[in-house]
Amino acid sequence: MHRTHTCGELRIEDKGKQIILSGWVQRIRDKGGLIWLDLRDRYGITQLLLEEGRSNASVIEAARDLGREFVVKIKGKVIERQSKNPNMPTGDIEIDLESIEVLNKSKTPPFTIEDNTDGGDELRMKYRYLDLRRQPLRRNLELRNRLSIETRKYLDSEKFFEIETPYLIKSTPEGARDFVVPSRMNQGQFYALPQSPQTFKQLLMVAGYDRYYQLVKCFRDEDLRADRQPEFTQIDCEMAFVEQEDILNTFEGLIRYLFKTIKNIDVPVLPRMEYADAMKLYGSDKPDIRFEMKFVELNDLAKNKGFKIFDEAGLVVGINAEGCANYSRKQLDKLTDFVRRPQIGAKGLVYVKYNEDGSFKSSADKFYSQEDLKSWAEKFGSKPGDLMLVLSGEADKVRKQLSELRLEMGNRLGLRNPDVFAPLWVVDFPLLEWDGETERYHAMHHPFTSPKPEDIAMLDSKPGEVRANAYDLVINGTEIGGGSIRIHDRGLQKLMFKHLGFSEEEAQEQFGFLLNAFEYGAPPHGGIALGFDRLVALFGGSDSIRDYIAFPKNNSGRDVMIDSPSTISNEQLDELMLMLK
Amino acid sequence: MHRTHTCGELRIEDKGKQIILSGWVQRIRDKGGLIWLDLRDRYGITQLLLEEGRSNASVIEAARDLGREFVVKIKGKVIERQSKNPNMPTGDIEIDLESIEVLNKSKTPPFTIEDNTDGGDELRMKYRYLDLRRQPLRRNLELRNRLSIETRKYLDSEKFFEIETPYLIKSTPEGARDFVVPSRMNQGQFYALPQSPQTFKQLLMVAGYDRYYQLVKCFRDEDLRADRQPEFTQIDCEMAFVEQEDILNTFEGLIRYLFKTIKNIDVPVLPRMEYADAMKLYGSDKPDIRFEMKFVELNDLAKNKGFKIFDEAGLVVGINAEGCANYSRKQLDKLTDFVRRPQIGAKGLVYVKYNEDGSFKSSADKFYSQEDLKSWAEKFGSKPGDLMLVLSGEADKVRKQLSELRLEMGNRLGLRNPDVFAPLWVVDFPLLEWDGETERYHAMHHPFTSPKPEDIAMLDSKPGEVRANAYDLVINGTEIGGGSIRIHDRGLQKLMFKHLGFSEEEAQEQFGFLLNAFEYGAPPHGGIALGFDRLVALFGGSDSIRDYIAFPKNNSGRDVMIDSPSTISNEQLDELMLMLK
Repeated sequence: MHRTHTCGELRIEDKGKQIILSGWVQRIRDKGGLIWLDLRDRYGITQLLLEEGRSNASVIEAARDLGREFVVKIKGKVIERQSKNPNMPTGDIEIDLESIEVLNKSKTPPFTIEDNTDGGDELRMKYRYLDLRRQPLRRNLELRNRLSIETRKYLDSEKFFEIETPYLIKSTPEGARDFVVPSRMNQGQFYALPQSPQTFKQLLMVAGYDRYYQLVKCFRDEDLRADRQPEFTQIDCEMAFVEQEDILNTFEGLIRYLFKTIKNIDVPVLPRMEYADAMKLYGSDKPDIRFEMKFVELNDLAKNKGFKIFDEAGLVVGINAEGCANYSRKQLDKLTDFVRRPQIGAKGLVYVKYNEDGSFKSSADKFYSQEDLKSWAEKFGSKPGDLMLVLSGEADKVRKQLSELRLEMGNRLGLRNPDVFAPLWVVDFPLLEWDGETERYHAMHHPFTSPKPEDIAMLDSKPGEVRANAYDLVINGTEIGGGSIRIHDRGLQKLMFKHLGFSEEEAQEQFGFLLNAFEYGAPPHGGIALGFDRLVALFGGSDSIRDYIAFPKNNSGRDVMIDSPSTISNEQLDELMLMLK
Repeated sequence: MHRTHTCGELRIEDKGKQIILSGWVQRIRDKGGLIWLDLRDRYGITQLLLEEGRSNASVIEAARDLGREFVVKIKGKVIERQSKNPNMPTGDIEIDLESIEVLNKSKTPPFTIEDNTDGGDELRMKYRYLDLRRQPLRRNLELRNRLSIETRKYLDSEKFFEIETPYLIKSTPEGARDFVVPSRMNQGQFYALPQSPQTFKQLLMVAGYDRYYQLVKCFRDEDLRADRQPEFTQIDCEMAFVEQEDILNTFEGLIRYLFKTIKNIDVPVLPRMEYADAMKLYGSDKPDIRFEMKFVELNDLAKNKGFKIFDEAGLVVGINAEGCANYSRKQLDKLTDFVRRPQIGAKGLVYVKYNEDGSFKSSADKFYSQEDLKSWAEKFGSKPGDLMLVLSGEADKVRKQLSELRLEMGNRLGLRNPDVFAPLWVVDFPLLEWDGETERYHAMHHPFTSPKPEDIAMLDSKPGEVRANAYDLVINGTEIGGGSIRIHDRGLQKLMFKHLGFSEEEAQEQFGFLLNAFEYGAPPHGGIALGFDRLVALFGGSDSIRDYIAFPKNNSGRDVMIDSPSTISNEQLDELMLMLK
């Protein structure tokens, strides 16, 4: 037997017990007469004690031969500690050590196994199995496990079936790039790994399964941005005989259940914001509503006063930063630099200080009187002591720029507390989005998304204004998931394909099996997919999904621990009838 | 709103309620004055009633326009049935139909959506979404969902963490053939899809996770035999600081929990059978112990009596078929034909009838006296009325042949009831197995399996006799899973690689990351993987896993519904720097 207890289990009530523990040597403190060892496993840390004179000399010798991360099995008796540690669950006791058996030695790890390690990113990725020993990562994976358990518990209680869909499917040119898998038994042909189980979950609705979910790996061969992984996990769901409202309510229920169960936070009913309002008030389809700082449009007040930049702009729009009128020249310059960064791309920034004495100081004082600026302040709802920050330019662009500035000010003012959670639904997304490159409309969500019935008539005249039955779940400025009510009518689906520029042959070739299925009694249905990696990271209070994945890949899509991808043998290539270029 | 209730929900207590249901038209019976419709959804079937004269004429007209599998939304009132159907949960009521709205039409399905359909295999695979509407398949997927929920519930209660391991990993030439995935960002290099998360789960033990599990898809590019799928699901598990006994007890607990929870069957404590005994007594490492019919070896009694075939055989061995002495010439010929089939390959079959009158009648009467045959009967434990069936030949081969005959007799005698479950552990598997083709020993389980300590000394002298800490879970003659205690000592692992014919470089290249990890304090550990598809099929009382997978592939690894695999575009090939041969 390797242990009678775990290293996180023993309490003062166990005093006097003979026990066996196994684990890793976390730390050794040798004070001459006394030696303490910290023994660690997944469940916690227990302190072991040796005392010269009292303890067996050979055990003391064995202890002095141990190194960090050695795996040992020890026997001893639970005793009460002289100086208790109230910060440790096992802090009231220690083990009077009677024997040590080394189960395995360890080389000195390349970085310390501590909450704040001295290891750099690259090194920790290479020795991921050592990094995973650190408490913060252990807690992250424990949280991930807990979230998956509770997600399933909720969906099961709502009568959803988890149904596994295939991983070896068919490549479709629409959307992002597929990973493909050459087939040896069907030479010259390839499977694709799923970017999502979209078509399969719709087929399950056609098959009558009513409520489907799956925690499922999906794959996307994208050029990786920071914090994107080529393989990622989704909570993928679909429901039949529902309207948008039913889906929002069901998954609002899931989110509130998870916050309550995992974090003991009562999240209020989720607000619903139309896409158009989100863009107008926050410049973003994923607004962080932990703080207000809504956009204020100034065209009527700021134009035609001789300030050419504003006069030529499509939109003059700003935000009010409470209590920032005392910003120094240097601070204001930094904000200007911020919005001028190429990633943001504003030409400049106009500020208006609403001084405590009621006067205004602006970077455009030449063009605007104190009276003018007072009318601005009224529109902004500013008080003395506030700072108005104003950008101008082409409407869509300037909104995006101001959104970045708003988030930056939120950070500076401490308004984005990771322990505060403000989820919302963004609804009524546009159905189509114009792609300047291919000069045609693309489906914003995917080609099966249904338009709002009252907007269908505009498909020909104003396609860009047609709204979809599509919605996103946004938490703290992050898109956690999205979905839509699907088209279940073959006629409407054909119309959509036409508007997306598919010929009938192309549509049939790519989605024929789905279109055929829709001929045999497809029910009204819709669904949603939530990014599980991101949801876990959010619950953990972090922006980085990589810390919540056991074995992530780096930004080149490599696993540096196992050194993958790698070359394969010529025999393998031959069997697949492939050649490298 | 699409429904107030599901089609499986309404009871006599709901009488008088105004309700809305949505579902598929299962059946229409038009008896002139009365029309009945059966409306179906995932939850059940509800009968709808129309009565000429009383019901609205336009609704009757609408009903007569419906076809099978139309999707409709209906309104009406719950009434008590005239003639109740006690076989249906909703059989006490029907709906007095007030309106019908067609949500979607349906073409006539290519086969009937009934428990016993008229559709052939090919057709049902092509229209899988229609086949999945049938009750038997719906029940299978529901069972699968329930088994996954309960498996997780048990393992969670045993403090296992579910941890997701990567799908894009590294190809290793050992074992079965990998599916590979070309990397666009690392040109000329490939990922492989996992055949199992073996190395990752061992790394998780090195990382201290103690108890890991995962319901996970695995992939194997094999020439498909009947009922093998290129992608399949495993319950993959690993534990640290355990011995074999701990693992057997933990997963015996899982199996008994699942039988109790899902099927309300109390499975007794699982017997444990050594591999050597399984081979000797049943000729199989996965014996079906729902019935006895153990092998009886006859070398001492049957040899040296002038019967050349037996004299030259390595082993003469038989089984006793209770109550079969009355088998006709024709029946016995059929058994002889059975063992002579090329898949089985026996040369012939010797039978001995133990007649009710105490006399014996044998196909080898020329060589054996009544006295001889009486001594056989004593060894077999036969009674008058029984039939002894005897094969001979090279020991390993004849045992396999007799195993097939034993199972066949079990079938004929009705001893293999699919509602009876007889799980057992087969333990002490050989560590190595001789491969005649490559003329070297292969790891029977995998190269990380630990030998029994007391057998290590034989690694050089008698490698074939070294036993492993390896075990299989067998239920009703099917291997449901297997596992082993792993080697956690780098020295022993090196010795194993040497005996498996790996050079040090080869071992380092293929398993370097695991060997390196073992330098940093690997704990004693072991695990198991259970075939989830097969477990579900077993619980469902079927041999065919395909009926328990939502979207299976056919025997050529094709998904005929979505027509995959398929060709990909030249642009895709170019991006991957690949050419077809």
